[in-house]
Amino acid sequence: MSPREPGAVGGQVRLEELPLREDLRGRTPYGAPQLDVPVRLNTNENPYPPPPELVTDVTEAVAEAARVLHRYPDRDATALRTDLAAYLSEDTGVPLTAANLWAANGSNEILQQILQAFGGPGRSALGFEPSYSMHPIIAAGTRTEWVPAPRRSDFSLDTERATDVLAEHRPDVIFVTSPNNPTGQSVPLDDLRVLVQAAPGMVVVDEAYAEFSSRPSAVRLLDEFGHKLIVSRTMSKAFAFAGGRLGYLAAAPAVIDALQLVRLPYHLSVLTQAAARAALRHAEQTLAAVHKLSAERDRVREALVGMGFSVVPSDANFILFGRFEDAHEAWQRYLDRGVLIRDVGIPGHLRVTVGTPEENEVFLAVSKDIASAGLERPGDSDDDTEVNR
Amino acid sequence: MSPREPGAVGGQVRLEELPLREDLRGRTPYGAPQLDVPVRLNTNENPYPPPPELVTDVTEAVAEAARVLHRYPDRDATALRTDLAAYLSEDTGVPLTAANLWAANGSNEILQQILQAFGGPGRSALGFEPSYSMHPIIAAGTRTEWVPAPRRSDFSLDTERATDVLAEHRPDVIFVTSPNNPTGQSVPLDDLRVLVQAAPGMVVVDEAYAEFSSRPSAVRLLDEFGHKLIVSRTMSKAFAFAGGRLGYLAAAPAVIDALQLVRLPYHLSVLTQAAARAALRHAEQTLAAVHKLSAERDRVREALVGMGFSVVPSDANFILFGRFEDAHEAWQRYLDRGVLIRDVGIPGHLRVTVGTPEENEVFLAVSKDIASAGLERPGDSDDDTEVNR
Repeated sequence: MSPREPGAVGGQVRLEELPLREDLRGRTPYGAPQLDVPVRLNTNENPYPPPPELVTDVTEAVAEAARVLHRYPDRDATALRTDLAAYLSEDTGVPLTAANLWAANGSNEILQQILQAFGGPGRSALGFEPSYSMHPIIAAGTRTEWVPAPRRSDFSLDTERATDVLAEHRPDVIFVTSPNNPTGQSVPLDDLRVLVQAAPGMVVVDEAYAEFSSRPSAVRLLDEFGHKLIVSRTMSKAFAFAGGRLGYLAAAPAVIDALQLVRLPYHLSVLTQAAARAALRHAEQTLAAVHKLSAERDRVREALVGMGFSVVPSDANFILFGRFEDAHEAWQRYLDRGVLIRDVGIPGHLRVTVGTPEENEVFLAVSKDIASAGLERPGDSDDDTEVNR
Repeated sequence: MSPREPGAVGGQVRLEELPLREDLRGRTPYGAPQLDVPVRLNTNENPYPPPPELVTDVTEAVAEAARVLHRYPDRDATALRTDLAAYLSEDTGVPLTAANLWAANGSNEILQQILQAFGGPGRSALGFEPSYSMHPIIAAGTRTEWVPAPRRSDFSLDTERATDVLAEHRPDVIFVTSPNNPTGQSVPLDDLRVLVQAAPGMVVVDEAYAEFSSRPSAVRLLDEFGHKLIVSRTMSKAFAFAGGRLGYLAAAPAVIDALQLVRLPYHLSVLTQAAARAALRHAEQTLAAVHKLSAERDRVREALVGMGFSVVPSDANFILFGRFEDAHEAWQRYLDRGVLIRDVGIPGHLRVTVGTPEENEVFLAVSKDIASAGLERPGDSDDDTEVNR
């Protein structure tokens, strides 16, 4: 809900009176609480502020771009796509060009454009849940039917069962998140190949957290499966650029042509294009921080295991752990101690973002107290044998 | 089409092979040619670069914002909406608050969100053509049926006939563009009131060019019609902020609540929010340039009339004029002389954006030569008695 004052212009009108689409009635806006607490480990942000040299570079690039703010930006963002191609080629070893890349205001807009082009009314999209909760929301926003498919009880992807599900439902688009948010596991390339082969339509491999993983990227499959594979990425996590809103994807050039039929013209501002290019020039430094975070993740994981928590193996910058008798009550106990983590709606589990060593120490100290107060034993509950959040 | 190199990864895949939505097949992306010529008067940009103080202010604001690029932006953009409310209250005399305002990446995203909330499959949107060509495109993108309605042969809006059309078609959303792009006329407040009263659903008054008009804004009707009226605006034109991509709207707080159900979370970057707020601090200076442009518009209009052109009265920063026997051929003749204007697809007519006095002089010199070479006489053709582009 928006800030509201008594007597506001039009303030007498109630949401229920508006001719809203029927399927939106009763819904609430997406979003984790934005609370101002000492330790914020709830939205998988990179805890390291941009280094001063990056801030200087972004500022200089924006100062230059601001001089032509009266002109529309390059509608095709060619320079930015060229830089993204260079980065992703270096990261994956696959020789991509600007024709393989597309960018938008965050990966949410990327995913929305994909469903506008390949989904929509009368079509369906399938995802293996629990997974990124925006996938079904963006499906709803584009009127694409959402088909939830299960994972194993340990949240890993059962490829064999997945191919059966694809044969049964024949979805127009499937989402495979690797590493998967909020559980953390990534999918081996051989399993991805099996899924792409089995998919009747487009396959979106959502690699928002790829830089934290040691597995090869699905980009390696692009030359073989250009007619059906899209790999989406973001600068929010590894590049510490969540505030800059830059999502991108790699695909066959024909897929980029398709997306240009649904993108809003001039969707990327000159400021976004300039700032993202500046940030990309600091990739080496940024990726050093990523390695530090991956090491911290492993340290935090071991500490949690040592305290008796059940921890899902993670290839990302967050950890899903449990088991709590009442996850929401446990979430509140962390918050009471100044640590904001995420209740992602998986019974018995909470998700924590890997922070700085100092933040992780505070988190682990609170965790220790909570563990001492008593955790649920594994097997106490059977409500997670098949999670279909 | 994207830049393409032989042997590109996935380059063998053709667009026709992809499982694209059927209604997108054969379409081409929206967009005017982005050509590098001496005089660019084709996209209704403000010809005046941002003043140095604004560039400095934007740069400082971005430098500050860049330090927290690793964090997600304020999802509700409350500070920006507060500043927009202050500006729009000052501009219209209506006491708005942040609860009345919503912002997005350009007014295109604003319009898309409106149709996601109030349009979509099984619903229809109506506009009076010729008008802003993105309205039907965004309707298609959201799968909203598009209903084109006519204007008078002089491109003005026939309110009485419009109410008949609304009664006949019962559209869920109607667009009224004031001033209208690409024709230039604005709609008197009394006529707007009649249209809003007659509309069965939501009414979007698109005021992208409002600052160039001397007519009162539809915002004045908000308190009376909060249950059905939305007024959209942009910083692209008057604020010389086309490159910054900031569209906004004013409506009843309940309408803003509805839009929050379809907006992508964190859609506005910290850079956009900071830069737009900085630009708003220079409103006084910006609006002085608007007054200068309005005076130039009137001067260019009179000069064109003096040369024998037929000129549509304009309340915006552009002028629709004719009559050309072959508008596209005339467009090419301007381009050959280094002047890029717009062929908006209205037979016999072209649209020119008002530029700096120097740019306008070049445009008028070329126009004089074209007029001397012979223009079509008014009445030579009857193909515009009802324009339904």
